[in-house]
Amino acid sequence: MDYRIEKDTMGEVKVPSDKLWGAQTERSRNNFKIGPPASMPLEIIYGFAYLKKAAAYTNCELGVLPVEKRDLIAKVCDEILAGKHDDQFPLVIWQTGSGTQSNMNVNEVIANRAHQLSGKAIGEGEKTLQPNDDVNKSQSSNDTFPTGMHIAAYHKISKITLPGVKKLRETLKKKSEEFKEVVKIGRTHFMDATPLTLGQEFSGYVAQLDHGIKALENTLPHLAELALGGTAVGTGLNTPKGYSKRVAEFIAKFTELPFVSAQNKFEALAAHDAFVETHGALKQLAVSLNKIGNDIRMLASGPRSGIGEIIIPANEPGSSIMPGKVNPTQCEALTMVCAQVIGNDVSMSVGGMQGQFELNVFKPVMAVNLLQSAEILGDACRSFEEHCVRGIEPNTERIQELLNNSLMLVTALNTKIGYYKAAEIANTAHKNGTTLKEEAVNLGYLTAEEFDEWVQPKDMVGNLK
Amino acid sequence: MDYRIEKDTMGEVKVPSDKLWGAQTERSRNNFKIGPPASMPLEIIYGFAYLKKAAAYTNCELGVLPVEKRDLIAKVCDEILAGKHDDQFPLVIWQTGSGTQSNMNVNEVIANRAHQLSGKAIGEGEKTLQPNDDVNKSQSSNDTFPTGMHIAAYHKISKITLPGVKKLRETLKKKSEEFKEVVKIGRTHFMDATPLTLGQEFSGYVAQLDHGIKALENTLPHLAELALGGTAVGTGLNTPKGYSKRVAEFIAKFTELPFVSAQNKFEALAAHDAFVETHGALKQLAVSLNKIGNDIRMLASGPRSGIGEIIIPANEPGSSIMPGKVNPTQCEALTMVCAQVIGNDVSMSVGGMQGQFELNVFKPVMAVNLLQSAEILGDACRSFEEHCVRGIEPNTERIQELLNNSLMLVTALNTKIGYYKAAEIANTAHKNGTTLKEEAVNLGYLTAEEFDEWVQPKDMVGNLK
Amino acid sequence: MDYRIEKDTMGEVKVPSDKLWGAQTERSRNNFKIGPPASMPLEIIYGFAYLKKAAAYTNCELGVLPVEKRDLIAKVCDEILAGKHDDQFPLVIWQTGSGTQSNMNVNEVIANRAHQLSGKAIGEGEKTLQPNDDVNKSQSSNDTFPTGMHIAAYHKISKITLPGVKKLRETLKKKSEEFKEVVKIGRTHFMDATPLTLGQEFSGYVAQLDHGIKALENTLPHLAELALGGTAVGTGLNTPKGYSKRVAEFIAKFTELPFVSAQNKFEALAAHDAFVETHGALKQLAVSLNKIGNDIRMLASGPRSGIGEIIIPANEPGSSIMPGKVNPTQCEALTMVCAQVIGNDVSMSVGGMQGQFELNVFKPVMAVNLLQSAEILGDACRSFEEHCVRGIEPNTERIQELLNNSLMLVTALNTKIGYYKAAEIANTAHKNGTTLKEEAVNLGYLTAEEFDEWVQPKDMVGNLK
Amino acid sequence: MDYRIEKDTMGEVKVPSDKLWGAQTERSRNNFKIGPPASMPLEIIYGFAYLKKAAAYTNCELGVLPVEKRDLIAKVCDEILAGKHDDQFPLVIWQTGSGTQSNMNVNEVIANRAHQLSGKAIGEGEKTLQPNDDVNKSQSSNDTFPTGMHIAAYHKISKITLPGVKKLRETLKKKSEEFKEVVKIGRTHFMDATPLTLGQEFSGYVAQLDHGIKALENTLPHLAELALGGTAVGTGLNTPKGYSKRVAEFIAKFTELPFVSAQNKFEALAAHDAFVETHGALKQLAVSLNKIGNDIRMLASGPRSGIGEIIIPANEPGSSIMPGKVNPTQCEALTMVCAQVIGNDVSMSVGGMQGQFELNVFKPVMAVNLLQSAEILGDACRSFEEHCVRGIEPNTERIQELLNNSLMLVTALNTKIGYYKAAEIANTAHKNGTTLKEEAVNLGYLTAEEFDEWVQPKDMVGNLK
Repeated sequence: MDYRIEKDTMGEVKVPSDKLWGAQTERSRNNFKIGPPASMPLEIIYGFAYLKKAAAYTNCELGVLPVEKRDLIAKVCDEILAGKHDDQFPLVIWQTGSGTQSNMNVNEVIANRAHQLSGKAIGEGEKTLQPNDDVNKSQSSNDTFPTGMHIAAYHKISKITLPGVKKLRETLKKKSEEFKEVVKIGRTHFMDATPLTLGQEFSGYVAQLDHGIKALENTLPHLAELALGGTAVGTGLNTPKGYSKRVAEFIAKFTELPFVSAQNKFEALAAHDAFVETHGALKQLAVSLNKIGNDIRMLASGPRSGIGEIIIPANEPGSSIMPGKVNPTQCEALTMVCAQVIGNDVSMSVGGMQGQFELNVFKPVMAVNLLQSAEILGDACRSFEEHCVRGIEPNTERIQELLNNSLMLVTALNTKIGYYKAAEIANTAHKNGTTLKEEAVNLGYLTAEEFDEWVQPKDMVGNLK
Repeated sequence: MDYRIEKDTMGEVKVPSDKLWGAQTERSRNNFKIGPPASMPLEIIYGFAYLKKAAAYTNCELGVLPVEKRDLIAKVCDEILAGKHDDQFPLVIWQTGSGTQSNMNVNEVIANRAHQLSGKAIGEGEKTLQPNDDVNKSQSSNDTFPTGMHIAAYHKISKITLPGVKKLRETLKKKSEEFKEVVKIGRTHFMDATPLTLGQEFSGYVAQLDHGIKALENTLPHLAELALGGTAVGTGLNTPKGYSKRVAEFIAKFTELPFVSAQNKFEALAAHDAFVETHGALKQLAVSLNKIGNDIRMLASGPRSGIGEIIIPANEPGSSIMPGKVNPTQCEALTMVCAQVIGNDVSMSVGGMQGQFELNVFKPVMAVNLLQSAEILGDACRSFEEHCVRGIEPNTERIQELLNNSLMLVTALNTKIGYYKAAEIANTAHKNGTTLKEEAVNLGYLTAEEFDEWVQPKDMVGNLK
Repeated sequence: MDYRIEKDTMGEVKVPSDKLWGAQTERSRNNFKIGPPASMPLEIIYGFAYLKKAAAYTNCELGVLPVEKRDLIAKVCDEILAGKHDDQFPLVIWQTGSGTQSNMNVNEVIANRAHQLSGKAIGEGEKTLQPNDDVNKSQSSNDTFPTGMHIAAYHKISKITLPGVKKLRETLKKKSEEFKEVVKIGRTHFMDATPLTLGQEFSGYVAQLDHGIKALENTLPHLAELALGGTAVGTGLNTPKGYSKRVAEFIAKFTELPFVSAQNKFEALAAHDAFVETHGALKQLAVSLNKIGNDIRMLASGPRSGIGEIIIPANEPGSSIMPGKVNPTQCEALTMVCAQVIGNDVSMSVGGMQGQFELNVFKPVMAVNLLQSAEILGDACRSFEEHCVRGIEPNTERIQELLNNSLMLVTALNTKIGYYKAAEIANTAHKNGTTLKEEAVNLGYLTAEEFDEWVQPKDMVGNLK
Repeated sequence: MDYRIEKDTMGEVKVPSDKLWGAQTERSRNNFKIGPPASMPLEIIYGFAYLKKAAAYTNCELGVLPVEKRDLIAKVCDEILAGKHDDQFPLVIWQTGSGTQSNMNVNEVIANRAHQLSGKAIGEGEKTLQPNDDVNKSQSSNDTFPTGMHIAAYHKISKITLPGVKKLRETLKKKSEEFKEVVKIGRTHFMDATPLTLGQEFSGYVAQLDHGIKALENTLPHLAELALGGTAVGTGLNTPKGYSKRVAEFIAKFTELPFVSAQNKFEALAAHDAFVETHGALKQLAVSLNKIGNDIRMLASGPRSGIGEIIIPANEPGSSIMPGKVNPTQCEALTMVCAQVIGNDVSMSVGGMQGQFELNVFKPVMAVNLLQSAEILGDACRSFEEHCVRGIEPNTERIQELLNNSLMLVTALNTKIGYYKAAEIANTAHKNGTTLKEEAVNLGYLTAEEFDEWVQPKDMVGNLK
């Protein structure tokens, strides 16, 4: 391979000559061979591109960066955001916990690319831009990396997670209304219980997601707080007056998301509680979705030897050995995603709790776990909605059959003959394999007419909604 | 031991004659010998007392319970809340997952105690109150247990957790102001960094708790939603019209807490996402407090061979073998609490995700974990505040010594001579064991006078606050 | 209340005069009001009693403690082990992370009680035994607390956990043999699949527990390693030559458990990986038991609208509102225990990972979580065995009905007519609501006789066992 | 794009014409757009390649597959293992929980590639091999996917994890010996304690890894058990006699790893406790490594205002804003990996506990988490060894300075003058900022000569080793 020489404060490094990165990126690439290469998510790189551009604009406006340098930086950032340099960010998650080398990777790529844009070959002549003094001006890894994290996370949640969950919520709501007259047996402790409608059952799922969406949205103001302007330790050393507030405004403008400058920069560098908070809400959604996915899996079980009260779409042959088998595969993908998110939440805690003094150095692992959770939750909701929930139909014949057999309809008699006598009827019918009505009449507690009047499943599903 | 015979729908059971409980309690006591006896928290029993009284008032108002029965039920509930029957609730956490037998324990105790209050011995004559038909009227375990859980949890959080965290937050805030002029070295990556004030360092802790308190308060509206009125499966079967709303109002009145009836009773029985949500915020606080406790432990380390920038109160001899040792024991208690809470959060997820159909049957384990976390977090904050933070003093001599030695003061020169030359100064001073000033002058990058003017720690701590 | 004055190196403290403890215990009692009082498990106190006695014997044998002092210490330790002083240990889990004050609590109680045994009132005359110099001789909290933890944990696992799990394993094995001829439908993805026997299904549970028991036993050698002899930092300062090995032998003798001296005392103080390791195996068992408990819950579901292939004992009325309901309550208690253990495992990780330098200061929280998990897992297995598994019966009629309907019997035809044609038969029967045989013949792929010969559920359950 | 038509039992599907996969792969690709494409790890595909080849050999040997088909299958498998078809496996983790479509992906690629190898274009003429009837013969997804998982996991652990951890262990051991004479202050509770040698401190790390390696190796026999031969539900339906044992032998031969046929196939399909078990050991290692990495970070802290007892290699400029800064970046990468692994362990639990009846459908998520943990742990150990531990040097001057100041050297006097007087000396010296010797003599408890004789750090580090 062909190399060129790049330098940093520690000396010279050989860098592949077709790459835009510099010495520090190359050092990190060689020092951290942990897991697959280039595992640092591009979303974070894009977050950096937004903030580098915003910093350049702010620095220029505040008189510490010439307009030509601003425009060069902005131009490269726009190229990065257009996906033109995706192969220039080879670093891994498992590097320094401040993400310093990913910050330098961006600084170096911008500086070298700007040099090219100025018509020069990399290494030729005076540097057009200094990675540290120009591109990183008024910045530190310690405030840029968390800012990049927040931009990436807020973007993912607002573009992928929330739309996915909300789409699923809408379809569940529609189904809940469609099924509002379908009276079916309830199940508590996985045992037969008093009836409800299939619509009511689905309304519970809607309520879970409503609460989960609200919980997630509650975390967004904290996530919108940006560390940028804190620089090395939170004091804002080497930033011009007014910088913090203005740079957040530029980021908000460029990303079209409601970012603000963090009220306390010390917290914003030393702790990532905003990530812990937002991921906590993702974990809550995972808990809810596991329940929903599992319920639907079980309601659809069969086709002949399970519950079978609903029919879900058959999307693919279910078995490589059992011909004709159809499986609740979307439920499975969804609940696997939930398992991942619930585990990721612990990685967030373990990372979040170990900040020391002025810096939390678990930034990359926290960033990556949140981004993964946000993405797969959103995607899984959309997939589950499109390939499963949207096509759910009640198996009305089966629902009717199970409802009619249920011994728990006896509960309707509590207010007529008391819990004890009602229990005697149910227990006797269970023992004899007979119907409630038969035994109610046999035991002399009520007449057949009274039974028919009082024990009406459709009257037992309440007026709640 | 002396026994009497109690009956339920399954037949007769021998119950210790000095106990108020009945057949179902006794069955559960014998069937679930898991862990220490009587592990079901009394707070939940008290939650039941509030709701049984509220149900009696509502039933009476809606015409399905005579006023005498209402008053008897209310009277026993008041006795329970006064702590007069604490020894009448022998059941364990690890029982049925709906808490049915704890509901029946309360029903049975109320019924038998009411019988005594009516002047009769237990078992003598007609039952004054039926446990199921009177005390449990318009209720099911499935809606009472979660209601009791929510009452207990909301109470604990508002009386113990939030006051504890807020008290700690206030004292940290006060310290942050006290220490606002104490310029000290910053540390990132646990390595020397640019300076900040001790007050700024503490302000980060305040900001963490501010966010944590807000996050916890955000969860309270969900926690305020009560399942009561859903009865067996959420449909409200066997409740009089208007019951749900009214019973929540009575509970709010009796507890003086802002409870409301859950909008969706199916969710309120089948999922405990409200608990997952609230515990998620407790976990976030634990993550924050672990950082704070660990920082203070490290800042106080020494007395001679550690960091030693602050002095914490010496509350007890620290070692059984090392004479004169003093340890950061409050930090240790606090961070152990955090470890517990972070683990409990996973128990919440595992319980919360496994609801099936109309009922989540992990209610007791979820209740107990949240109550423990809420209590020990609140208590630990109070203990940490009282026995540690309140007495923290800066070790100004040590702070000054460490500050003056720091090579990272060189950062102030970035904007004067650029990052590369500044790095050269720092690296040379590090290699030679000399001062920045010496090397700055030696290298010819600036004069001694410029150095003294430009490198002023107190000018490096920013104007952020 | 009546007080006496006790002293330690920090000065005087008032102690309730009816208590045996001294100044340091009282300080801790006042300084750590976190959670309920006296939460430090008595098992750990008993572990201390064993080790204090063993230390006294070793010190005496090695010539650093007179025989009279040895005997006094041993006598009080025996009283403690007999449960005579259970009310003398008021401290909480959430104290110093080394458990120093619990060590001192034991030292003080032994010293004061020895004074009484010598015929003197507490405080009267010269101290018979010095808590630090005599009772704690050749010891530190840093090596005694982990030793006490290991004794308590090993004891709990060998007396409660392993017997409980093994008992359940035996009964499942017996059931597996009992049910070995009961051919039933299999279920994969919760959907109908090819048949197996109920005995085979249960044999999977047996295999899970066999592996879990082996995994737990694999961890015992590490758990058998005792820190005692390391004293303050692992170097064994202030211990006589030969002490470590000998004291472990005495502990092994007194406890009748195979304890040995830890090979590396630095690890034994600074890390509690042995606890992490053992709890990891408990967590594995919890994962297995959750699967088993959930399966049995679902197999028993119904009685009329679920799977209903097995019948489990009806131990208690299942519902306070639904008369005649019976629930899988033992499965619920068991799976709640699993949820707790899985969460506790994270507390173990969070505690275990945060040791610093020569000491891990999360000892109490780690001890308590392991002891709880070990106890409730063992108890729950015993309860589940006794009140559920032992009484399981197949519902043969239901099993037969479900088996005969199954479309997945078609899999037997793969090797006769190929996967594609078999799939066509199954899909057609599913669509038409007919039987496989009808469609197989209709489609002309085989004769009725061939079908009857080839599709025999009992021939499909293999010869594996 | 160019397409061809592929078929499965559900009908026709358009597949990109340059791809070897078939209808079922394409369906899955379209139905599961969750997270990045092709996220199913290639290691699992390679595991499949081994097992498909082994199955072909076994089927042939047992007379159910012609030798030409065996050889064709084997040839394609070898191509896959040579990495020639890496772009033919586009599916994601988040698919069906049995991994059925990944099994079919492999079946389809083998069948189509075999067709090409037979000189025909895909789709041309009669199929050379049937994906289900030939390539999948005597198999089901339900036994192949877990077999592929086990092969991939065992391979990763034996080739990456164990060598990485052992390499680190060796270097720590070497350092422990190198540093065996370096007496330094000990720290407990992060406070000054009695001395030990730096070698002893490092020996604790070695002991942790020794235990961790043993724990991981203890899990390998379970991991070596292969599900193959269980087919759909564990009964081995549609396998020839002797198949299970023989196919495991072939896999062992081809992979050169000690695989055996699982004793109980029902467990091997329905539970993945082997993965839970192995990951539990990985998690234990993560807990240990977090302690080690954090200790080294703190020991190296400074350079001027921290502990600074060791010097670690400076691998890269540490800060984009603070010139000359060097950070413990390898410690940070390592501890971030630990955070990930500890979280992944919970995903394993959540997946493992939710098997239902004859199948656990969290296979892909469990596979992926274990493979990630095994890889990044092994890689991080190697990186940490190479770029950090190998270059660690003691900062002897600093070590000596801190040691000499320590007040805890007073502990040596316990056995001479008793704990109380020793404490008085230490407390007085602390209060007055003087030395122990001064105060010891001032207080009249011993002479200067006695002090010099008795208080010798090098005599306080024991003879343990």
